[in-house]
Amino acid sequence: MSIITIIGAGQMASALTFPATENNNKIRLVGTPLDREIINTAKATGFHSTLKRQLPETGIEYYQIEDVNEAIDGAELIICGVSSFGVDWFADNILPIIPEEIPILSITKGMITEEDGKMINYPQYFLSKLPSNKKLSISAVGGPCTSYELADKDNSEVVFCGDDINLLRKFKSLFETSYYHISLSTDIVGVECAVALKNAYALGVSLAIGLAIGADGSGKEHYNSQAALFGQSIKEAKRILEIVGGGEENIIYFGGDLYVTVFGGRTRRIGTLLGQGFSFEEAMEQLKGVTLESVVIATRAAKYVRCLAERGVVKLSDFPMITHIDEIINSDGKVNIPWKAFESEKIL
Amino acid sequence: MSIITIIGAGQMASALTFPATENNNKIRLVGTPLDREIINTAKATGFHSTLKRQLPETGIEYYQIEDVNEAIDGAELIICGVSSFGVDWFADNILPIIPEEIPILSITKGMITEEDGKMINYPQYFLSKLPSNKKLSISAVGGPCTSYELADKDNSEVVFCGDDINLLRKFKSLFETSYYHISLSTDIVGVECAVALKNAYALGVSLAIGLAIGADGSGKEHYNSQAALFGQSIKEAKRILEIVGGGEENIIYFGGDLYVTVFGGRTRRIGTLLGQGFSFEEAMEQLKGVTLESVVIATRAAKYVRCLAERGVVKLSDFPMITHIDEIINSDGKVNIPWKAFESEKIL
Repeated sequence: MSIITIIGAGQMASALTFPATENNNKIRLVGTPLDREIINTAKATGFHSTLKRQLPETGIEYYQIEDVNEAIDGAELIICGVSSFGVDWFADNILPIIPEEIPILSITKGMITEEDGKMINYPQYFLSKLPSNKKLSISAVGGPCTSYELADKDNSEVVFCGDDINLLRKFKSLFETSYYHISLSTDIVGVECAVALKNAYALGVSLAIGLAIGADGSGKEHYNSQAALFGQSIKEAKRILEIVGGGEENIIYFGGDLYVTVFGGRTRRIGTLLGQGFSFEEAMEQLKGVTLESVVIATRAAKYVRCLAERGVVKLSDFPMITHIDEIINSDGKVNIPWKAFESEKIL
Repeated sequence: MSIITIIGAGQMASALTFPATENNNKIRLVGTPLDREIINTAKATGFHSTLKRQLPETGIEYYQIEDVNEAIDGAELIICGVSSFGVDWFADNILPIIPEEIPILSITKGMITEEDGKMINYPQYFLSKLPSNKKLSISAVGGPCTSYELADKDNSEVVFCGDDINLLRKFKSLFETSYYHISLSTDIVGVECAVALKNAYALGVSLAIGLAIGADGSGKEHYNSQAALFGQSIKEAKRILEIVGGGEENIIYFGGDLYVTVFGGRTRRIGTLLGQGFSFEEAMEQLKGVTLESVVIATRAAKYVRCLAERGVVKLSDFPMITHIDEIINSDGKVNIPWKAFESEKIL
């Protein structure tokens, strides 16, 4: 039994309370300034208004952000539960108040592009924001796991990654249940890159859905074209993993996560709308108010490969899919899948 | 323009007439003894009774099997268009009458297990059946492509593989269209292994669909569990590719093909039924008359890894998914996904 403080009360962070309380941990769920109503409702009724589930009845204490210091005090683990749009808030407001002896496990998926185009993951980004005299241990969660299904205790397979395998094993013991399965990896660069990229490529695979159903949405889904984009996604992600120095076996996490992401949610929705022929602006209008991590990561990944191509490190022609996605969302490009550019010749 | 003789008039073989005639080739479509009615109907009306499409109006001549010699005479390429259940018929009856100068392109997906458990692909198998004084050139087609969608001219990405890259380039020029995209590879072992294995693992991923919808089929599909099985599929397929000596980049074809196979058809159906709790016998009864390549390849792949494990070449514990599928279909095992066996630890 450990005291675990989760900061950020969004869907995924809150879904973690299920395996966490099942292991008899004591959970402190802290809302960000944007989560005020979620915390109020959950405190009063136990109902999570965006996860749309009753949270576990026992083992959770709810905190508003002004009580975050109290929530951190005595915690054995802190979960960074913000989305990628909240990382700067977390870095500026929370990292400074976390004592060095409390390890952090981050569920935020994504990558940041640095000035030179280089992509770094959020644990690396958080560490870069610390004053030079402060050290923190930051691990992360990857893998294909939607919050609703985790809350429903469906079988889910994730990966905890970080520098310290013993710490990861401890985290695993705090969260593992009969339905929440946890692999461990010290290849944090590879895992985080794989799980971030899947959002970008899931948008790309979804273009084929929109192309098939057509402008009025009445057409039938085709799978050959989705499969072609799925294969090309794996091909390009493998190359990017290689460049960032992540182990190529992380393609396992990429593939599983890409599979689940294409099935539903916001990423599929934006890709489908674009495939149907809506401009990026029109598609975004239809999705008003929705955070689109896929758009952010696609933009960053494309910028990264463009920078590398300029420096002669890669050939831009090896990344026709991500560059086309980038043109669509950032240069008002029309959807025109470069199928022929996906073809390859392998000679042994 | 070339004369192309397609032997076997099933759905996939017949769908190839669309890109083939579009390139102004002259097609001779020859039915096997099982395709008699298909050929009769197509000859009379142009309608393909199992593909359920009108075949191209011009450029195709139809032949019954007794006229196969006439159909072969003067052909520049022969397509082996039988399913894996027809390979022995093809090897025994057709290979002997093909002149050495006519190259063969096989669309049959699958692998054969030899006495010692070793898996070989169909081109290798065909070559092994030739008398020692006969030589034939046998290439093959892989990649995620369903026949219906190819016939509907949806964008499809496939790979032609064989020993001779120049011959493959020629084949590509005969079939490539604006919707039929062709990569080339001389890694025939890797390509064929990848595309064969996807059938076995698609059955495995589909188990999660059945588990989710339950015995009465009323439940909702879950995706976390499918994604976990999808990731595990990639993991095990990568290992098997390594063992057979196929390039690991063939996981691209495996992944794309696995994706499309889980979406529909017979493999999804049998996996779902098993996941719902039907015994293999009961599930097979419901699918009466349906050829199940997934069952064959799963059995063979499991036999292969078991043989290798006995010889100490691999650890059987590295293949928990394929061995579980094998237990279900061949030893009346109950579906009980070994989730914990999928977990891994990677320490850099």
